[in-house]
Amino acid sequence: MHVIVNAATSVDGKLASRRRDQLEISGPADFARVDRLRASCDAVLVGVGTVLADDPSLTVDDPDLVADRERRGVTPQPTRIVADSRARTPRDARILDDAAQTVVLVADGCPTDRLDALDAAGAELVVGGEERADLPRAFAELESSGVERLLVEGGGELLFSLFEAGLVDELSVYVGSLLVGGRDAPTLADGDGFVDDFPRLELDSVERVDDGVLLSYRVP
Amino acid sequence: MHVIVNAATSVDGKLASRRRDQLEISGPADFARVDRLRASCDAVLVGVGTVLADDPSLTVDDPDLVADRERRGVTPQPTRIVADSRARTPRDARILDDAAQTVVLVADGCPTDRLDALDAAGAELVVGGEERADLPRAFAELESSGVERLLVEGGGELLFSLFEAGLVDELSVYVGSLLVGGRDAPTLADGDGFVDDFPRLELDSVERVDDGVLLSYRVP
Repeated sequence: MHVIVNAATSVDGKLASRRRDQLEISGPADFARVDRLRASCDAVLVGVGTVLADDPSLTVDDPDLVADRERRGVTPQPTRIVADSRARTPRDARILDDAAQTVVLVADGCPTDRLDALDAAGAELVVGGEERADLPRAFAELESSGVERLLVEGGGELLFSLFEAGLVDELSVYVGSLLVGGRDAPTLADGDGFVDDFPRLELDSVERVDDGVLLSYRVP
Repeated sequence: MHVIVNAATSVDGKLASRRRDQLEISGPADFARVDRLRASCDAVLVGVGTVLADDPSLTVDDPDLVADRERRGVTPQPTRIVADSRARTPRDARILDDAAQTVVLVADGCPTDRLDALDAAGAELVVGGEERADLPRAFAELESSGVERLLVEGGGELLFSLFEAGLVDELSVYVGSLLVGGRDAPTLADGDGFVDDFPRLELDSVERVDDGVLLSYRVP
């Protein structure tokens, strides 16, 4: 499975303000690029923090891209996946609407009522991992169910976990021309952080997009 | 006074790991660029957190650049400045050695013994501000003492304060091709952070340097 991380940050690496309010970091050209990227993938993954903060739908917006997918004989929309160890995705979250299939990755031992609620909302559950969803195992399961290309769209806690587990193949960062600041604002990679053996990336391309810059890396 | 901020971050906006260990983010071409930038400035400013974590000397390294300064009739080295509200700069910090002049910006009410120690170490003190050094006032004082071009080299607490006070004219960020992670790792701009009216920057140039990328912004 090929795993692509895509994120938009401020110049100082922030995904949002300390209040977690969503920011307008990129512009129309970058939105269109991300829409094409989503359309090219079998599934799109976010962490539950992103669902709680932004309530994204994670669907492909452009009808031409949806039609292209149908011509390719795949589902009109990529499968949506939430890494949600404790099954906190709200019943009325957009990601659970009927615009696409949804998979929720949960850890062992989640309260049955929450799992039942997700199941009743039509989500498929992938269960595994003590306290935290077992991402390597879930990724293997996704791959064997036919996900060849996975896009990950944040947030910083999930992205750190994926880099820590060595599960990322590509990283695209749109750096918007604004400053957010804040020692408590979420960044591209949060978690505990590395203290040595920092993952080295290979800068693949640099492109000015909208009023910012798109940096694309391979993760060796 | 023209104020230039220069910093090197990881792809995720970190200046260092959560342990504050200094990182090798950039390479020889960027070191040479920063040396030229220092040599072109009248003074170089850092926050006391950077002094405590990295113990930098902040001097120009290349003897040719030092000779150039002498030919221009200025001091061989730019003046070194520490924003150090509570006068915590250690007596044996490199920034207090005799390689260049040093100014320490402190707030009102610092313990006399600390101020005496800095004075005995040869530092010039600029006193003002309740609890925190009054940066706009200190900058006005620096300007009237002949500092026309000031380079600021971090860390994230000082940089946020300067952006908050509207004191920055240019920002250069070297984005190294590595990931650091960590919700507690220092970033390019920490402090409380903005929650609205985020400073917008103008992307001036994008240049590949060493194995990373140098982003240069104007701050309107």
